[in-house]
Amino acid sequence: MSIEINSPLDMHLHLRQDKMLKVVAPLSAKYFAGGLIMPNLIPPITSLEMVKEYKKEILESIDEEFVPYMTLFFKDSYDEEFLKSIKDEVLAIKLYPSGITTNSEGGANLQDLTSLYPVLKLMSELQIPLCVHGESEGFVMDREKEFVEVYENLAKTFPKLKIIMEHITTKNSVELLDKFENLYATITLHHLLITLDDVAGGFLKPHLFCKPIAKRPEDRAALLEVALKAHPKVMFGSDSAPHPLHAKESCGCAAGVFTAPIALQALAQLFEKKGYLENLESFVSLNAQKIYNITPIEKRIKLIKKEFKVPEKYGDVVPMFAGKTLSWSISEE
Amino acid sequence: MSIEINSPLDMHLHLRQDKMLKVVAPLSAKYFAGGLIMPNLIPPITSLEMVKEYKKEILESIDEEFVPYMTLFFKDSYDEEFLKSIKDEVLAIKLYPSGITTNSEGGANLQDLTSLYPVLKLMSELQIPLCVHGESEGFVMDREKEFVEVYENLAKTFPKLKIIMEHITTKNSVELLDKFENLYATITLHHLLITLDDVAGGFLKPHLFCKPIAKRPEDRAALLEVALKAHPKVMFGSDSAPHPLHAKESCGCAAGVFTAPIALQALAQLFEKKGYLENLESFVSLNAQKIYNITPIEKRIKLIKKEFKVPEKYGDVVPMFAGKTLSWSISEE
Repeated sequence: MSIEINSPLDMHLHLRQDKMLKVVAPLSAKYFAGGLIMPNLIPPITSLEMVKEYKKEILESIDEEFVPYMTLFFKDSYDEEFLKSIKDEVLAIKLYPSGITTNSEGGANLQDLTSLYPVLKLMSELQIPLCVHGESEGFVMDREKEFVEVYENLAKTFPKLKIIMEHITTKNSVELLDKFENLYATITLHHLLITLDDVAGGFLKPHLFCKPIAKRPEDRAALLEVALKAHPKVMFGSDSAPHPLHAKESCGCAAGVFTAPIALQALAQLFEKKGYLENLESFVSLNAQKIYNITPIEKRIKLIKKEFKVPEKYGDVVPMFAGKTLSWSISEE
Repeated sequence: MSIEINSPLDMHLHLRQDKMLKVVAPLSAKYFAGGLIMPNLIPPITSLEMVKEYKKEILESIDEEFVPYMTLFFKDSYDEEFLKSIKDEVLAIKLYPSGITTNSEGGANLQDLTSLYPVLKLMSELQIPLCVHGESEGFVMDREKEFVEVYENLAKTFPKLKIIMEHITTKNSVELLDKFENLYATITLHHLLITLDDVAGGFLKPHLFCKPIAKRPEDRAALLEVALKAHPKVMFGSDSAPHPLHAKESCGCAAGVFTAPIALQALAQLFEKKGYLENLESFVSLNAQKIYNITPIEKRIKLIKKEFKVPEKYGDVVPMFAGKTLSWSISEE
């Protein structure tokens, strides 16, 4: 059995910088036609110059054709002139609540949402989509649920602004998709596969520790439902987030699951098992094209039902399914 | 400021075997008058001979006066003759649902509770208390809550059997204390201090990963309420569970927090901060004496309000608060 996917897109991708970038960027470029590149570097991407420089660094790290769709780190201080100047260089602006995840210090203060309104109004007028890391500062299992009111506020206040709820993990977030026309979502591979049980139900698994943390079985079921059926408002975003081994297996382990090089294979396995293989292309490419109004480069990826032993490491990064065998692989022909 | 505690008791303690036993047993013996020793060794303690041998091994590992109150690993195959033969050698029998925690394979099958009834009936008649690790096989955050019905069943079916709900972590379990006369509980230090936020809310903290997993803020609040007020049906049980460093900081980290050598200091700090220092002796000694009907050896421990820098390691074991400073210490005079 095999399936061809045209122009897979990874609409939530961390490529990092320097040495790590050189390890992971080629892995995404190999199998994806493009990806939405997250701006939470140190320091975060907040100027046109930084966007261009980062894009150049990414393109220099890869040999294959791959489009890094760039993002800007949301600041409530951006003005109209600036936003107009970056409009053609970025596909979206990413909002992080301050301090909520890796390198999100300096993000938005959500205590007073109205402080964000001027920039959001401009983004709405300029048709720049807003990507959001939607977590409160509450108890870890409640953070995304508590963020629902922020999504509702933003969706109602800016009905023309496209808002993408990034890496959603709960039933509550899924329900918002059909409630507000301007809310969309990315879903990761790992949140389709695991719950908190997999992270901390038996032994503790640092390589499955991520933010937002994997939730309850009923949450995973809700995510699966919309992903497998390729709900037109959801798209694949791996949130593939590499950390070197020492930062994962230590007494204070960093959050992030590295999935970029194994995501398509694992998705094919999942979609086939559940009987929805015909929807995979929509989930990993067509939906994103429509939502972001983009036409990616041609890149035909042939997935075949043939065992693929996932490497223990890529460089110093341990991928999801390290050392395990997936039932689908990517044809190298 | 100082306080003297007579005969502190740790009513839920893992001392392990061999080399690890020799590291951790002296640390408990130094500050506690006695402890209830868990039987989940490899293989578990299921015979009179094993009880005696393990007790001997413990006593040979320590120099100070310390009473290891022994337990037996529950089996539904025990008969009356056997139970009579061990009655004077063990203080309680510990029931583990099969496969639920470290070395609990071969535990009780809880699918059919009536299969346990014959042994429980004998224990009730012989007045041997039953200690229970109360977790279902469900989703990690629901396991203790789902076990409530088992506790209720056992408490109702055997009203004369003393049942100790070990290391309780939820509001639901706390509520059972006032609902059934024959239900008691141990509470650990770490479940009084942490929630899942501390384990997985920021960086992942393997040294705070334990079973049952730390729960929600409202659960911790319920535990604190009965511990600080020294509710007569609760007693301190550290569940101090040493694992060597390599088993904690790895890609599949073992469950257990090591607290034995720092527990009294941390409890004094907590009880003082909350204004309940006068209840500490009841929580760490008097309640257990009444519940188990035991008279421990005299051992006066003087706690003083003086900074104590917790060692990074004891042998190869990382304790809770490693490298941190507690505001109370134990007088070595």
